[in-house]
Amino acid sequence: MPDQTKVMAPLRTAEKGRDMEHVHWTEDTVSVEGVRERGFAIERHGRTIPGVLWQSSRQSGPRPLILMGHGGSGHKRNERMVMLGRMFAAEYGWCAAAIDGPVHGDRGPVTDAKHPAYRQMWQRPDIVQCMIGDWQATLNVLSNKEDVDANRVGYWGVSMGTMFGLPYVASDDRVRVAVLGKAGMSGSSVARSGIDTHFRKFAPQVHIPLLFAMQWDDERFERSGQLELFDRLGSKDKRLHAYPGQHVDNGPEAFAVEAAFLKRYLEGI
Amino acid sequence: MPDQTKVMAPLRTAEKGRDMEHVHWTEDTVSVEGVRERGFAIERHGRTIPGVLWQSSRQSGPRPLILMGHGGSGHKRNERMVMLGRMFAAEYGWCAAAIDGPVHGDRGPVTDAKHPAYRQMWQRPDIVQCMIGDWQATLNVLSNKEDVDANRVGYWGVSMGTMFGLPYVASDDRVRVAVLGKAGMSGSSVARSGIDTHFRKFAPQVHIPLLFAMQWDDERFERSGQLELFDRLGSKDKRLHAYPGQHVDNGPEAFAVEAAFLKRYLEGI
Repeated sequence: MPDQTKVMAPLRTAEKGRDMEHVHWTEDTVSVEGVRERGFAIERHGRTIPGVLWQSSRQSGPRPLILMGHGGSGHKRNERMVMLGRMFAAEYGWCAAAIDGPVHGDRGPVTDAKHPAYRQMWQRPDIVQCMIGDWQATLNVLSNKEDVDANRVGYWGVSMGTMFGLPYVASDDRVRVAVLGKAGMSGSSVARSGIDTHFRKFAPQVHIPLLFAMQWDDERFERSGQLELFDRLGSKDKRLHAYPGQHVDNGPEAFAVEAAFLKRYLEGI
Repeated sequence: MPDQTKVMAPLRTAEKGRDMEHVHWTEDTVSVEGVRERGFAIERHGRTIPGVLWQSSRQSGPRPLILMGHGGSGHKRNERMVMLGRMFAAEYGWCAAAIDGPVHGDRGPVTDAKHPAYRQMWQRPDIVQCMIGDWQATLNVLSNKEDVDANRVGYWGVSMGTMFGLPYVASDDRVRVAVLGKAGMSGSSVARSGIDTHFRKFAPQVHIPLLFAMQWDDERFERSGQLELFDRLGSKDKRLHAYPGQHVDNGPEAFAVEAAFLKRYLEGI
């Protein structure tokens, strides 16, 4: 991972709602095949939210933004986040941003969901609300950028990206469309995290167009519990896409279909 | 419906397998917005299989073919078939063909699934095998056409289009990819038809890439029975797409997504 300690002076201060966020753009800009990847760090309540923003280097004018939540034991620049960030920027011309989850990436020691800190994270009674606040702060900052179209914001995140992302998209009406999934009301990952309590509260509060992706043979979130979570989601405009395979597997066209879904709602075609 | 009695002299005789089919092209060619729609009638074992072929009027060279099975009480030229036939031809440049199911369209009295002849149809012990033969005969004829690419054949059919289509695609290895759905192992439409027996036999024999579409609140085929049918399908490369709504409803992008799925497998992109 790039060195997040090389932090430049604050370039911008965002004030929205009750919070005040300070963003520092880090010096780790990378350009690969027409996509610019740039680190940032947002100061909020004395804590730092480390993030990455992907944009097409050919971008002109404000473009839709996809917020991307990584999975458990991952981080903002893991293989999946980089693949999606580059795809959204290069193929769709969108902005895409990822932030480290609590105790993940530059925020902590977890690189394996078996790490004790992972289980401890879920014991914190405020952990979901805290990550909701982090995403809101991130969107406060990014939606102030001239090249971000704050009226066209989507969310992509499965597994832990849904455990935090579902409560978030239920809580921030600036997010217009979401891809969620690989999560549910039962299974070993639910027993460990207690996320079902949060899903029970927040799922009915989600009302945006939604694609819920699941793996038919998921060994961490039971099939029936995933179907139950899909059922609980308040959105009238929702769809379930299921593929054979376990938790880490993906349908051959899953990401392309998810991107096309986001495009349909963000670009109206 | 166009008058199927205006039948021209046979233009072509197809011999494949054990059967010999005679095809008559009817005089009801219609051209709408670049799509040519042409009726045909295939003679097989003294019976007639009435069909329609849609093609782009700009087509040059052999193109993929989609066989389309209509739903119960429908017919080869109902609104859905015409919509899909024109879409496949105009937007994708493919050929698309529909035939009347037994006792439907030009083959019988059923225009409502409550008609006694509909229930009687399902009592016939040979009905599924008979329709398999009709589809095979249809493909024998159409795959002999110079403008049809016999190596790129797909099937689209939900509800009754799956009740007949699933056994068919399991039985004809010339079909390379299929969209099925809105059918399952339990529910009132299963009780009436006994189709679960056929699904139990044929579903494990389906091995082609498959998209299974279902309505989450289907009142004719129970949710659990549809999920069970998806589970039973032998294809390793399969996906389930579920949308809220009852049997006749459809997801807002369902047809476009299904077409894109067929394209991925028929055109390799």
